[in-house]
Amino acid sequence: MIYLDNAATTRPFDEVIHETEAINKEFFANPSSMHTAGYLAEKKINAAAKTAMEAVGAKDGTFLFTSGGTESNNLAFFGTLQNAIKRRPHIITTKIEHPSVLEPIRFLEGLGAEVTYIGTDENGFVHPDEVASAIRENTKLVSVMYVNNETGAVQPISEIAKKIKQANSDILFHADCVQAMGNADIDVGRLGVDMLSFSGHKINGPKGVGGFYCSKRVRVKPMILGGHQQMDLRSGTLNTPGICGFAKALELTVQNRKEKHAHLARLKHRLIAQLAGDAAFFVNNAEGNYAPHIISLRVNNVRAEVLLHALEAHGICISAGSACSSNRPAPSHVLAAMGYDKKRIEETIRVSTGAFSTEQDIDTFCTVLKEEAAALSKFTRN
Amino acid sequence: MIYLDNAATTRPFDEVIHETEAINKEFFANPSSMHTAGYLAEKKINAAAKTAMEAVGAKDGTFLFTSGGTESNNLAFFGTLQNAIKRRPHIITTKIEHPSVLEPIRFLEGLGAEVTYIGTDENGFVHPDEVASAIRENTKLVSVMYVNNETGAVQPISEIAKKIKQANSDILFHADCVQAMGNADIDVGRLGVDMLSFSGHKINGPKGVGGFYCSKRVRVKPMILGGHQQMDLRSGTLNTPGICGFAKALELTVQNRKEKHAHLARLKHRLIAQLAGDAAFFVNNAEGNYAPHIISLRVNNVRAEVLLHALEAHGICISAGSACSSNRPAPSHVLAAMGYDKKRIEETIRVSTGAFSTEQDIDTFCTVLKEEAAALSKFTRN
Repeated sequence: MIYLDNAATTRPFDEVIHETEAINKEFFANPSSMHTAGYLAEKKINAAAKTAMEAVGAKDGTFLFTSGGTESNNLAFFGTLQNAIKRRPHIITTKIEHPSVLEPIRFLEGLGAEVTYIGTDENGFVHPDEVASAIRENTKLVSVMYVNNETGAVQPISEIAKKIKQANSDILFHADCVQAMGNADIDVGRLGVDMLSFSGHKINGPKGVGGFYCSKRVRVKPMILGGHQQMDLRSGTLNTPGICGFAKALELTVQNRKEKHAHLARLKHRLIAQLAGDAAFFVNNAEGNYAPHIISLRVNNVRAEVLLHALEAHGICISAGSACSSNRPAPSHVLAAMGYDKKRIEETIRVSTGAFSTEQDIDTFCTVLKEEAAALSKFTRN
Repeated sequence: MIYLDNAATTRPFDEVIHETEAINKEFFANPSSMHTAGYLAEKKINAAAKTAMEAVGAKDGTFLFTSGGTESNNLAFFGTLQNAIKRRPHIITTKIEHPSVLEPIRFLEGLGAEVTYIGTDENGFVHPDEVASAIRENTKLVSVMYVNNETGAVQPISEIAKKIKQANSDILFHADCVQAMGNADIDVGRLGVDMLSFSGHKINGPKGVGGFYCSKRVRVKPMILGGHQQMDLRSGTLNTPGICGFAKALELTVQNRKEKHAHLARLKHRLIAQLAGDAAFFVNNAEGNYAPHIISLRVNNVRAEVLLHALEAHGICISAGSACSSNRPAPSHVLAAMGYDKKRIEETIRVSTGAFSTEQDIDTFCTVLKEEAAALSKFTRN
């Protein structure tokens, strides 16, 4: 298998699998139990929290462990705005967010929140001035994803943060960092953010675990209630193996970030070089401030879905748009927001590399792609 | 280590660890991805859902995978009542529920729901007639846990279900089955329930994964919104390793239930026999319809917390009350609801056995307990 769908999910590092297995065997006790075994499990949780805080450069504030990026994104909205909904808070977000940001916001909109959805330029970038000019007196929360999951566009988070602070320092700023961790520089101080969301399985960590960072000034209310774990902000028996596996993935990701970044950038350039000069292909995100792991590629006159199935016959896994919308092949709202026409959207595939991707993967992909694209384009209406 | 805190959490079966590891390595793709690797992961999820449906004897309805018993219990309330809160729905529950049931109910009560908290008799049993006589015209939901986590009391779920149906067949009936799975007979048809909650880590499965069953007639709304996974009822990338590990634990638990039940009953009798005739000890739940894995034991004139720490010096892990309330040693609300006085509550420990418990564990525990209790009771005020 040539796995080029790392923006959808990644293969866990062997170190992560080993860590979760070791915890499952040796530190399986409930971290809330008062006996020694519980205490030892709690120590593992505390160490994981410390690793997570370091991974985001946080000196204070809180790092919560959740069930994944989706829960973390939900918490950013439901945990801060649901109780204030009667005052009709205003939210600013972008048209290119992940559904786990857009859906909670739409839910709050249904309850009475006011929402401004900022667009992007044709390259997928949000402009800080546009965010600034959307700010109203009742703006309570701004949410902009750091790295887009379909284009890799790295949004100017710290510039947006500055504009927000200038306008009204009470406004909270949340950044979905699910695709950013490992692919962009994450430091809460430098970014100027109040809340960040993370996912384990996007960084070669375990599935079913995510992170939510919030600064000291955020008064977040829990979404999930019960045994008062995690300072009563997220109840439920702590998933020690998953949390420690996540911490291990964070540690390795932060440690190897620059090296991995350079490796993935080389792979992207290699792919671009092999398709260069062939009019059948167009790389949507060739130049500019894009994270290196996502290649948004248009294959002229071949529908992405058809191509995807042709490639999988060769054991190549890529994506048409994002995988996160559960088997619902709908036209990408991200590419639509960038002003792509229907045909361009339908002909765009997402190739996403990861820690395990090799030059050989890229070469094989390019060879097979050229063959299949040539064969398939003959059958496609122009 | 002699681990006798299985009601708090359990050591995962080797088969479960092996299953999650195999899935992590071979089926790591996103089950929502449209390529073959995604499809193969999705097939694993579907097989797990089938196992789960069989484990609860369900022919129709829906089995959702959640992040644990806490989320499942929250979903039973927030997913069914939050949208109807303006009509002031009436909820009936018991005073001995887990915090992950009581806290969401209290939250809804704060929003305007009416709630009746039913008590128990001195042995910890809820009486169906009491539930029936609490039913009002606006009663929408009844929630009674199947097996209590501090006493093991098996509640008469099917009798309560009959009373509810007689009074008003529109009322939904939820049973928290976190402690019941593997320790009581679970068949949705025979029980007459509409919603059930489960946890992976209580049945030697993985932490961070739970189950929520609802019958066809329940219109549950999602708590966590995003990529529309699980029929849009629970968004978030499916945790294939965790879900398959949970399914493996369910399979083994159901398969070995009678054998395990007999084994744990023997261990309970063995413990009772070794303490019999010694006035220092009193087993609160010696006789009656109790699940066999929990022994609620009073040690006269020794505070549970002190005893717990004395036992852990011998490598013995037990609990004072339940572990689920995150290091907050508060007097047990369960034992208080049963009418125990303060001293009896403070002197009650919970010994809970599991699949890996042995006769040797019980014998060592009893020997050490007698020594420590004798030594400690000298220092305690009468």
